[in-house]
Amino acid sequence: MSQVIINDNEVDIVIGALHSDLTTFMNAWKPVFSRFHLVIVKDPDLKEDLKIPEGFSADVYTKSEIERVVGSSTSIRFSGYACRYFGFLVSKKKYVVCIDDDCVPAKDNAGILVDAVAQHIVNLKTPATPFFFNTLYDPFCKGADFVRGYPFSLRSGVDCALSCGLWLNLADLDAPTQALKPSQRNSRYVDAVLTVPKRSMLPVSGINIAFNRELVGPALVPALVLAGEGKLRWETVEDIWCGLCVKAICDHLSLGVKSGLPYVWRSERGNAIDSLKKEWEGVKLMEDVVPFFQSVRLPQSATTAEDCVTEMAKAVKEQLGKVDPMFSKAAAAMEEWVKLWKSVGSA
Amino acid sequence: MSQVIINDNEVDIVIGALHSDLTTFMNAWKPVFSRFHLVIVKDPDLKEDLKIPEGFSADVYTKSEIERVVGSSTSIRFSGYACRYFGFLVSKKKYVVCIDDDCVPAKDNAGILVDAVAQHIVNLKTPATPFFFNTLYDPFCKGADFVRGYPFSLRSGVDCALSCGLWLNLADLDAPTQALKPSQRNSRYVDAVLTVPKRSMLPVSGINIAFNRELVGPALVPALVLAGEGKLRWETVEDIWCGLCVKAICDHLSLGVKSGLPYVWRSERGNAIDSLKKEWEGVKLMEDVVPFFQSVRLPQSATTAEDCVTEMAKAVKEQLGKVDPMFSKAAAAMEEWVKLWKSVGSA
Repeated sequence: MSQVIINDNEVDIVIGALHSDLTTFMNAWKPVFSRFHLVIVKDPDLKEDLKIPEGFSADVYTKSEIERVVGSSTSIRFSGYACRYFGFLVSKKKYVVCIDDDCVPAKDNAGILVDAVAQHIVNLKTPATPFFFNTLYDPFCKGADFVRGYPFSLRSGVDCALSCGLWLNLADLDAPTQALKPSQRNSRYVDAVLTVPKRSMLPVSGINIAFNRELVGPALVPALVLAGEGKLRWETVEDIWCGLCVKAICDHLSLGVKSGLPYVWRSERGNAIDSLKKEWEGVKLMEDVVPFFQSVRLPQSATTAEDCVTEMAKAVKEQLGKVDPMFSKAAAAMEEWVKLWKSVGSA
Repeated sequence: MSQVIINDNEVDIVIGALHSDLTTFMNAWKPVFSRFHLVIVKDPDLKEDLKIPEGFSADVYTKSEIERVVGSSTSIRFSGYACRYFGFLVSKKKYVVCIDDDCVPAKDNAGILVDAVAQHIVNLKTPATPFFFNTLYDPFCKGADFVRGYPFSLRSGVDCALSCGLWLNLADLDAPTQALKPSQRNSRYVDAVLTVPKRSMLPVSGINIAFNRELVGPALVPALVLAGEGKLRWETVEDIWCGLCVKAICDHLSLGVKSGLPYVWRSERGNAIDSLKKEWEGVKLMEDVVPFFQSVRLPQSATTAEDCVTEMAKAVKEQLGKVDPMFSKAAAAMEEWVKLWKSVGSA
C-alpha cells in the first residue's frame, strides 16, 4: 500500500470553542495543528473573549460573523457544539478535521504522541471496504492485507467519506452510564481502523472526526436540537443524528465510513448526575431514531450529498414528524442547511 | 459486566491432525488445553501413526472410526482440514474450540501468554450486538461499555454463536497475496473483540474458532471441496464456505458472530508459489459465492440450524448449481450432513 501524502492546503482544522481560554488546548495540539489552517468558531452563547495562543494560522468566527453569513431568520441553531457546523459551512478545503476543545493528543501503546490529523487523513485517503468485512481490519493499514476468501472484485474498495476517531481516558458514554460508573475510564488502546459495514448504523460522536467535505460536507448537518440541550456532550445528540444521516447517505452513495484510530485523550468535564437531572430526552429519542435510519431508503435519483439530505429531510418529516415536534424541526433545519450550503458555496 | 465462569465439562477442544507428530503442538498448548476434553481427528489421508504426548484427556478418531460412524456411501469428505468436522459431529459439548495444528499460543502486548480457550468462551458466553455498531468494540469486555447514542433497547444483545480468533506472525492470506508479499508478517496485536454486524459477511478462517454447538453446530458443515484441494490453508475454502453459511444462518436466527481476540501464533508452512501453480479455483469461486450469501434469504419456517442448512442447501442447488458442479456437490453434502447430524445426535 502506497504512502499517503498530506497536503497542508487541503485540510482545515475546525474547532468549536465552547470555552474562552483555548491556550492549554491549542498548545497541546501545536505539534499536530500548526502546519494547517484553523477555523475557530466561538459558541455564540459564550460571552468572554477567546484566548488563542500565537503560532497558528487561524480564522475566528463569532456570533456577528455567523449572523452575517447565515442571517437571523434561520431555523438552524449554531449554539453549543453546533457552532462547529458553521466552520464546516465556511471551510473551502477538501478535508475537515474536527476535535473537541476538551481533548489533547493521546499516546499510543509505545508511548508515542498520536498525530490525530495524519491518521484521519490516511483513513480518508485510503479506500474503505463496506461490502465485505475484513477480519484483519483496515487492509490498507501498514502490514495489513485482505484475508483469504475476500473477493478480489471488492478489494479496490470505495472512497472513504468519514473517519471517526476514539477516546482514551473519558469515553463518550451517555449520562446514565457515566453516572452508574463514575470511575470508569477507557484505557484500552485498540490499534485498528475498520470500515463500518454497509447497512450497519453506528453512534458517531463528534468529539474526534474528519470527513471529506467535497463528498459529504452537506450531510454534516446540525439538525436535532434537544429541548433542554446543554453544553456537555452527554446532554446533546446533534452529532449522533448527523452521524446517522452521513452513514445512511454513504451507504446510498457507495461511500465508506471508518472507525477506530486515531485516539485523543479526553479530559474530565461535567457531572453526569447533574446532567441526568436535567434531561433524559436524547436517550429516549434514539429508540425512534435508530429504526428510522436503519430502514430509510433514498431514491436512486439522489446522487449527491445535497440531494440525499433533501430526501432524508422529507422522510424525517413524514415518518418521524408525528412522533415528536423536535423531528419536524430537524427536518426543517436539514432543508434549510442544503440551501445555505449552496448559497455559501456559490458566494 | 459479570465474570464469566468456564465449566470444564461444557467445552471440547477439537483438533484436526494433519501431521502425525502432535508433540510440539500439544505441549505448547498444555497450560491451556489440559483441563479440557480433547477430540483429535486424524486426517484419513495421513498414513503414519499419531504421536500424542501424555497428560491430556483425549479421544482419537481415525479413518476406521469415521467410516464406522458415517458409513462409506457418503458425499461428505473428511479429508484434510475437513477431518475436524467429524469432531464437531461426535462432540457432545455445548462449546467447541478448534485450533489448527500449526498454531501455538500467542503473547499479548504485555508479553503474557494468551489463553485462547478462555477468551473464546468469554466471547461465546457474553452477548453479541449485531444490530447496531458499538464504536468501543465489544461492550461486554472489561472496561468497555456502550457508547452514547446506543439504543437501550438493543443493549441486552443476542446469544453469540461463533467466535472467530485471529493470527499473529503468519496471517491467513490467500496464496496470491502471500506469494506477492513473501516476507509479510502480522505483528499487530489488536486488543479488541467486536460483533460482525448483521448482513455483513466475513471470511471466517477455520484456523482458530469456537462455536456454540447447541445453537449452530449443524451449520458448521464440510461442504465445498475444491477439485484440486490441497493440505494447506490457502489451498482450501471449506472454512470460508462454512463461515458464510453460519453467518447467514446467525443473521436469520438473530444470533451473533464475534471476531477479534484471541490471537494464536501461526507458524510457517508451505510455499505459496507452489500452491499458486496448483490451483486458483478458490479465489475465482468467491466471486459467485459472496453475492449468493449476501442475498440469500431463508424462510421464516426455518427456526433451527438444521432447518436453515437444509433450506440453504436448496438455495445453493438452485442458484449456484448451474455455475459450477462443485456447488451442486456442496449442496448434496449439506443435505447429507443434516441427516448425519440427526442420526449421530440420536444414537
